[in-house]
Amino acid sequence: MQPHPQVAEQESIAHETIVAISTPPGRGGIGIVRLSGPHALEIANALLTLRSPLAHALARFAEIHDPESNSKLDEAIATWFAKPKSYTGEDLIEIAAHGSPVILELLVRLALQHGARLARPGEFTERAFLSGRIDLTQAEAVRDLIESQTLYQARTAAEQMDGALSRRIRPVKQTLVELIAVLEAGIDFAEDDVDLMPDAEIVTRIDTISVDLEKLARSFEHGRIVHSGLTMAIVGRPNVGKSSLFNRLVERERAIVTATPGTTRDLVTERVSLGGIPLELVDTAGLRESTDEAESIGIQKSREALADADLVLVVIEAGVPLREDEAQIIQSLAGRKALIVRNKIDLDLEDNAVGESTMAVVGTSARTGQGIDDLRAALLSMVRAPTGESESGILTNLRQHQAVTEALSGLVAAEEAVARKTPHEMLLLDLYSTLRQLDSLTGETTADDILNRIFSTFCIGK
Amino acid sequence: MQPHPQVAEQESIAHETIVAISTPPGRGGIGIVRLSGPHALEIANALLTLRSPLAHALARFAEIHDPESNSKLDEAIATWFAKPKSYTGEDLIEIAAHGSPVILELLVRLALQHGARLARPGEFTERAFLSGRIDLTQAEAVRDLIESQTLYQARTAAEQMDGALSRRIRPVKQTLVELIAVLEAGIDFAEDDVDLMPDAEIVTRIDTISVDLEKLARSFEHGRIVHSGLTMAIVGRPNVGKSSLFNRLVERERAIVTATPGTTRDLVTERVSLGGIPLELVDTAGLRESTDEAESIGIQKSREALADADLVLVVIEAGVPLREDEAQIIQSLAGRKALIVRNKIDLDLEDNAVGESTMAVVGTSARTGQGIDDLRAALLSMVRAPTGESESGILTNLRQHQAVTEALSGLVAAEEAVARKTPHEMLLLDLYSTLRQLDSLTGETTADDILNRIFSTFCIGK
Repeated sequence: MQPHPQVAEQESIAHETIVAISTPPGRGGIGIVRLSGPHALEIANALLTLRSPLAHALARFAEIHDPESNSKLDEAIATWFAKPKSYTGEDLIEIAAHGSPVILELLVRLALQHGARLARPGEFTERAFLSGRIDLTQAEAVRDLIESQTLYQARTAAEQMDGALSRRIRPVKQTLVELIAVLEAGIDFAEDDVDLMPDAEIVTRIDTISVDLEKLARSFEHGRIVHSGLTMAIVGRPNVGKSSLFNRLVERERAIVTATPGTTRDLVTERVSLGGIPLELVDTAGLRESTDEAESIGIQKSREALADADLVLVVIEAGVPLREDEAQIIQSLAGRKALIVRNKIDLDLEDNAVGESTMAVVGTSARTGQGIDDLRAALLSMVRAPTGESESGILTNLRQHQAVTEALSGLVAAEEAVARKTPHEMLLLDLYSTLRQLDSLTGETTADDILNRIFSTFCIGK
Repeated sequence: MQPHPQVAEQESIAHETIVAISTPPGRGGIGIVRLSGPHALEIANALLTLRSPLAHALARFAEIHDPESNSKLDEAIATWFAKPKSYTGEDLIEIAAHGSPVILELLVRLALQHGARLARPGEFTERAFLSGRIDLTQAEAVRDLIESQTLYQARTAAEQMDGALSRRIRPVKQTLVELIAVLEAGIDFAEDDVDLMPDAEIVTRIDTISVDLEKLARSFEHGRIVHSGLTMAIVGRPNVGKSSLFNRLVERERAIVTATPGTTRDLVTERVSLGGIPLELVDTAGLRESTDEAESIGIQKSREALADADLVLVVIEAGVPLREDEAQIIQSLAGRKALIVRNKIDLDLEDNAVGESTMAVVGTSARTGQGIDDLRAALLSMVRAPTGESESGILTNLRQHQAVTEALSGLVAAEEAVARKTPHEMLLLDLYSTLRQLDSLTGETTADDILNRIFSTFCIGK
């Protein structure tokens, strides 16, 4: 991969050596301080007392001495990854000391005294990007991988980190570049009144690109879900078994891996993983039984939570005729991702009509566990990608989606230009606009402020 | 150092390969999974896809593959520290992946599937101890270093980790062993009625050992403070300037390094570092101004906090005659580590008598900052080791202190035995008891249950 064109502009920044604690905050067996930049080696040598000099990819035993008393403070393993064979593409040094914040902060302070500066969030990865080691979608995937809460999210992030999205964009861009080349050539020959490519062919080529980009744009529907998770509201009249159903769903799914304890359980929501997608169960008025709502689903109170939820489960009681408020809820959910759950089927009662709704109905018994697998499968089919799970290289954040949407706008404008028989010079402007958007997606041309915005969402030390 | 005598007994344990996440919990740039034991290499090879085989102290690029899809999940750096050149003395492998709990937990899960078992807290260090790489005081110091909150604590822990306490014990033990050897020899010659060493000489030798051990036992007074920190109560009548004084002290001292935000400030205490010693300022009734206590120091409410505090500052107002309740507090603190602070000296009022107390008095003005340095120095002199800071190899925990105290009991019994002219066989029993205690201090002979208790206070992964 070529170095990023902005490298020259960023040269002054890259000449600084950065330092940060790269392991999570807190205490542990091991904590790592990372240095990257032209003076990394020199600074590390000032910080460490080494038996043998640092050498590329060799884990060296090192002592950290107290700058005041010069007595030994800690023992560490220091590894130098020599430029360009490192994560950042620069000289990179990792000092693995004991995971004591006091020791790690002392190391950082000493590094600062020796001329390093504190790394901004994501700056190590930013340097990997600026050195051309990874593109922008890969850099974003590093952040997503670290932040992943489920293995499924980690898998998606890993694919992107491996360049899946970039690989998907590449042939589309290639087709676009070829079209542009032909049109550019046509302009040179314009005086000869020879069209190198008939309009119909131009439109066909633009369509090919559009079809690919539209499919890519649609992948964001799934990508957004994988990245951010979903909220699911469970509504229903009191005593239809919402809580038991909720508990059944929670117990069947592995609890989400969270960094800080206490986030899986709070007053209003419960987070579980549904097929690897983080699912936030929203405590609507209907979810919490409340005696003063005994005669009503509590439509008013639930409406807001319902409106925001990505998924809705409407729980009704098997064999009990549908009440007016239940029917209303079901009707109001037309076109939404929602399921009707006929609970208490173990009581073996007759089917109850669910009105005119085309919504899928699943019969369950939260008490016996009957039908829970069906419910789970039905939920999964709503959550998983419509194009199948095998789709790789999907859009996972708004920035990517926006770039593709704007690339598509360029194509629409270009097709209109063809229809209006405008000169190819104008048409080319639209196609170049699309090309720019595709380039910004992978970071081949991206404004500095956008880069700053992206990397500021990383953790320090990465 | 010789392998620990318990190695043989623990052999079955040591044959298991252990695994743990060794970096602090949470998300970060880097997270490390550690494997130690005879199958560490084999398990690591099963977990990783390597371009070049692992080799001692070489940082190798590795891919972590999804066991389900076999697609790449993460990139990592794996380093093998070959037996016995490792922290544990066994084959040790560190896999540095991205600091994503999902990835790290997957690695641990895979390692378990390949025959490793989860490491108990401190088990890596326990193995370092069992393999004879470090002694017990050094192992304890590893934990203390990780848990240190100030650089001063870290320095003390680092000295112990370097064997300062063991070095201090060694000559004492040597003298004891020599005495025992002479007495044992004397028993062999007993029939010849020749005393190889006169009783006076025996007592002199025992005294030499006692003097050293008593000094060592006294070092716990300081070691305990360094290890656990101190609590300081500030008491005084309303409006004498306790809060301002408190703020002055807090602002002058670097805030303590804490792993989790929020622990430095809570409702009842404030933690600061006084000369590197964690100081917990206790919010006695007197510390918090309360209008319904306007006419009283609130002796009743403060008494409990006062009783528990290691240090007490009694704040009085310069130039205002000492009130009855103030005089009572001062009297009740006789023999305690306490200071009288005459605040508001900027008002330039006459000295007020502080009664019969021999307590040190410091004049301050919390408003102008006058005298705060003197107060700080006075506090430090109460906090720091009476024998000076240079004393190294001090007792820092109760276990160590108990061993030394019991070692001293053995010597007392031995001296009594000499005085009673009991046969040297009996005397030797007491001296052997002392020797056992000194050995248990460094872990040369320590019961398994005690070892378990020590290492269970470590963090996982160390």
